[in-house]
Amino acid sequence: MAKKLEQTWRWYGPADTVSLQDIKQAGATGVVTALHHIPHGELWPLEDIRERKAIIEAAGLTWSVVESVPVHEAIKTRRPDAGPYIENYRQSLLNLAAEGIKTVCYNFMPVLDWTRTQLDLEMRDGSKALYFNWNDLAAFDLFVLKREGAEQDYPEDIKDEAKRRFESYTPAQLDLLSTNVLMGIPGERSIELDELRASIREYAAIGFDGLRQNLIWFLSSIADVCEESGIRMTIHPDDPPYPILGLPRIASNKEDFLYIIRELDKPFNGICFCTGSLGAGVSNDIPAIFEAVKERVYFVHLRNIKKDEQGNFFEADHLDGDVNMYTVMKALTAENQLRDQAIPFRPDHGHQMLDDLQKTTAPGYSAIGRLRGLAELRGLELGILGQ
Amino acid sequence: MAKKLEQTWRWYGPADTVSLQDIKQAGATGVVTALHHIPHGELWPLEDIRERKAIIEAAGLTWSVVESVPVHEAIKTRRPDAGPYIENYRQSLLNLAAEGIKTVCYNFMPVLDWTRTQLDLEMRDGSKALYFNWNDLAAFDLFVLKREGAEQDYPEDIKDEAKRRFESYTPAQLDLLSTNVLMGIPGERSIELDELRASIREYAAIGFDGLRQNLIWFLSSIADVCEESGIRMTIHPDDPPYPILGLPRIASNKEDFLYIIRELDKPFNGICFCTGSLGAGVSNDIPAIFEAVKERVYFVHLRNIKKDEQGNFFEADHLDGDVNMYTVMKALTAENQLRDQAIPFRPDHGHQMLDDLQKTTAPGYSAIGRLRGLAELRGLELGILGQ
Repeated sequence: MAKKLEQTWRWYGPADTVSLQDIKQAGATGVVTALHHIPHGELWPLEDIRERKAIIEAAGLTWSVVESVPVHEAIKTRRPDAGPYIENYRQSLLNLAAEGIKTVCYNFMPVLDWTRTQLDLEMRDGSKALYFNWNDLAAFDLFVLKREGAEQDYPEDIKDEAKRRFESYTPAQLDLLSTNVLMGIPGERSIELDELRASIREYAAIGFDGLRQNLIWFLSSIADVCEESGIRMTIHPDDPPYPILGLPRIASNKEDFLYIIRELDKPFNGICFCTGSLGAGVSNDIPAIFEAVKERVYFVHLRNIKKDEQGNFFEADHLDGDVNMYTVMKALTAENQLRDQAIPFRPDHGHQMLDDLQKTTAPGYSAIGRLRGLAELRGLELGILGQ
Repeated sequence: MAKKLEQTWRWYGPADTVSLQDIKQAGATGVVTALHHIPHGELWPLEDIRERKAIIEAAGLTWSVVESVPVHEAIKTRRPDAGPYIENYRQSLLNLAAEGIKTVCYNFMPVLDWTRTQLDLEMRDGSKALYFNWNDLAAFDLFVLKREGAEQDYPEDIKDEAKRRFESYTPAQLDLLSTNVLMGIPGERSIELDELRASIREYAAIGFDGLRQNLIWFLSSIADVCEESGIRMTIHPDDPPYPILGLPRIASNKEDFLYIIRELDKPFNGICFCTGSLGAGVSNDIPAIFEAVKERVYFVHLRNIKKDEQGNFFEADHLDGDVNMYTVMKALTAENQLRDQAIPFRPDHGHQMLDDLQKTTAPGYSAIGRLRGLAELRGLELGILGQ
């Protein structure tokens, strides 16, 4: 009997409009969550972890993965005051491990988490999807943020179109664009323009190589804790997998991941394989990346995108996009047979559809669109494994 | 490139609480519907067919299958007044064919369509499912309907339990049980107890062999119309696939279907292969039945059930029941490769879940539960076919 992957679902905690009961009805058995109420960098107390775990287990579910224990900016930039944040991170990991929660997702994207320019692109079936458009990003960058040096980062045709868009947008449209670009994780704080400008200057000084070194330093600083407690860290790819707003990106392609896992070559140093984030990269061959790094993949986000030549992309139905989900699932289920512990995956994002369209959820985290994605992936796995 | 099945969805027409937009968002491209406002036996006018077709096509969908053109009781019982009903049936088929709608589902179940004793059995995940329980059917049969001869149809343990239940049920519970058992298709009329008793007597005189002969007579009477216009008739299995309330059942197992297609051995005489209806039969081997009749399968209902030794069953998630959906889909996709025209299938029924639980839909025809089922089946097909 072939082993099945673990089906999980991201839950933003008790304030999430999607309930644990909804998650069960969608067919997931594992929950991916984080203590979003705790500010970045602070310690995750044992009691808070226990309380969250108890809520999840009372619903008949398992807390499978933490996404994310956020890495404080002081660590990413390796500022002199990073020490206490490292200490907090180590202790938070120990507290999670003490409760048996040992797969941790994190990212090392400077300042901003994932970035989109529109959250409600209407699909032909009337559902709504997240969208990233370079013209709009450039309009924000050049004319709202007014970043120094931004002019050099865009080709002429994008700059022209960005200017045209900026001039045609109403103030409300510009506000919405800024809000979308600056949006943080629900329940966590968003960033202000001045703060963003300051961060961009700070990261310009650090650069690509510096940020890579800071990541390895961070991982080295928690390595002993992870190894002793059995914690497996999984870095999430940059989303989108390009430098944006002049910020360096160090987890965008195969070379980046090979560097990360080889530079600190220990089993705890793993990857969250996100097919959507990686799939947005026009040069990324998703099955080839998986093949190269699969032994270190401890958590998987399955999502699809459709992109154009310019690199603009929208989030597509899970089985109907540029990522060949069949090929990915085939490789993933094969890898899963070699594991003692089932690899957890979650449907990542989903369109807003049916009753979702009347509700507010975290962008991308609709109930029904994700339920559809998870169901498609469940069927896909069964079709590949047989039974 | 492997050919895909056609993904369809049953729609009860403009009054259905599930909209055509919902259907598109669920990922179906084909619609299965009927003119439910037209009383059984009456002619389906060309204008009504055109109007329905136009509504469906305006939404970007296709009217793939008619389910059902109901067969009037006068035909099933071959009463002397059956002639005009046959004429109407023939003309309705011609009208449908004139609009290019050539796959027609029907059933030959006496009086009642499908039968359940409960419509809201709560699952462990909080969703609700349709349920059939022999004790409750016997309680209705013995103590509400008070059918002559019913005593002989049940073993002692069921009769004892039926009596216990009847005595413990409140009047409201008994009313609900009767409503459930007698329920018709939404928008069509339900039957009264007296009418049911009269029908049961009528069918007792016809018997199993007589009903079979009536079916073959009906099919012979429409054969020329079907052959000339390209109509393919598909008989739906009995649901559940047992004689109930003393009524004969003639489309419940492999032998029944082989009889039907061999006795009138013409290509138009086809089958709607319903894995849920057939799956409720404790002696039915679903893949073996499909193998035996597959060349005449022109329409498929994919649904799952879980049953106990007594033959009680509830409708289970599409991939998680007694029917091995992987095996069925594998055989079905293989057969589909041999066809010029994709075989239409629909997810049949689905739990009420998430927002479904706050809404009223046709029993079994929830939006989100079915969306889940269709998505699972879509993934399953992709996993089997690869791409």
